[in-house]
Amino acid sequence: MNNLLKNDEKLEDLQLDGLQIIQSKKFYRFTSDAVILANFVSVGSKDFLMDLGTGSGIIAILTAYKNKPKKVFGIELQEELADMARRSVQFNKLENLIEIINCDIKELQSAKIRQELNISEADVVVCNPPYKKAGTSALNNTENKSIARHEVALNMDELLKVVKVLLKYGGRFYVVYDSNRTAELISKLKTNNLEPKKIFFTQPSPDNDATLVFVEAVKGGKEGVKVLPVLITNDKDGKYLEKIKNLKF
Amino acid sequence: MNNLLKNDEKLEDLQLDGLQIIQSKKFYRFTSDAVILANFVSVGSKDFLMDLGTGSGIIAILTAYKNKPKKVFGIELQEELADMARRSVQFNKLENLIEIINCDIKELQSAKIRQELNISEADVVVCNPPYKKAGTSALNNTENKSIARHEVALNMDELLKVVKVLLKYGGRFYVVYDSNRTAELISKLKTNNLEPKKIFFTQPSPDNDATLVFVEAVKGGKEGVKVLPVLITNDKDGKYLEKIKNLKF
Repeated sequence: MNNLLKNDEKLEDLQLDGLQIIQSKKFYRFTSDAVILANFVSVGSKDFLMDLGTGSGIIAILTAYKNKPKKVFGIELQEELADMARRSVQFNKLENLIEIINCDIKELQSAKIRQELNISEADVVVCNPPYKKAGTSALNNTENKSIARHEVALNMDELLKVVKVLLKYGGRFYVVYDSNRTAELISKLKTNNLEPKKIFFTQPSPDNDATLVFVEAVKGGKEGVKVLPVLITNDKDGKYLEKIKNLKF
Repeated sequence: MNNLLKNDEKLEDLQLDGLQIIQSKKFYRFTSDAVILANFVSVGSKDFLMDLGTGSGIIAILTAYKNKPKKVFGIELQEELADMARRSVQFNKLENLIEIINCDIKELQSAKIRQELNISEADVVVCNPPYKKAGTSALNNTENKSIARHEVALNMDELLKVVKVLLKYGGRFYVVYDSNRTAELISKLKTNNLEPKKIFFTQPSPDNDATLVFVEAVKGGKEGVKVLPVLITNDKDGKYLEKIKNLKF
């Protein structure tokens, strides 16, 4: 299988039934945020799931493997990254479940393009988007990494407009952002008829401010949100990855 | 001093330098929520503070005593309750700082009425409002108590419209709600140009969902919110009241 690997790439063991992901120094590494988000996603066996900005393919692969939905589409703007994710899918023998598409998320607004790509209304959409506003703090040192961290290629408004179009009525959207954008996110979700139904925060320790906010929103959902227990992400005992892999929401 | 007490009333010791509050079986008892909210309020010595729906006067009394602002107005719809709060203010010798006004919060929309009551723009507004929507769950068994718990006399939209008018530009608003109304609250605050700047939740224990959300919003504030550490409210060691009295935000 190692002919699936290129020179600057290596395999990372997800410590879950032998699942492995190709990682490259050229691209932003997936983080535990993605693993938490993948665990948060609730998806059934008849569901069609879209992972927007799939990157290494981590969320597409984890949700496909754990939940065996009908189909998972992973959308990735960067061609090389899409290719790498596609090879990770092959590596884990999930080609029947997952299709990686190399295109700009914003293009999915167009009904014509969705038709060409054979994309029907999604039951579930998930996105681990760039957290930081373009122009805030130092951009990452390579363009590849900046696209994953900063709103260079996609901002929150653009993302939510696409999600609203992709999702069927009653469908679920899962997303994570910097917690200091919580108010902006909640308000924009509601403006786009995506009603927050579950929300939780991560804190490094019991005494620290929250760092990330995770939201499940339902298209056309009724008002009223469940605020789940805060997730403490410190790793004093080194068992953090183990812990988040087994999260139940 | 006990001639300040009526038949069905008793004094409750706040365990803070001898501060006491008159409580009556006829009215909704103040809860620890009010004490937490009062501690959350940041108010300076030159500030004019308004406590909307002051009830027993607990928040007006605690903030006046602790922070010595220029002036505190406590607004209370129910005449008997306003009278009781006024006597609590006298009991604690805070008449110079606190004025209790018996009127409907909604009437404060009117510039004429504000002028008559000598109410100028507030630096800080605080409100421990009715949490529950009118018509949801069982109403409390007496009308007096229902007004404090259910949106019989004041709903969220009405409250925020008044707050927007009362507060000066850059002024701060402090409020607490059921956490399942977090999304609604945040979105409506933003609609009213009250930008959430600090937010935190209470949880009964580390494993339970949140119950309440506390928000500090700034009129005309810049987007971006700090999510403070979750506050665990269990009382295993019986030191909960002690703990919340000394909360620092």
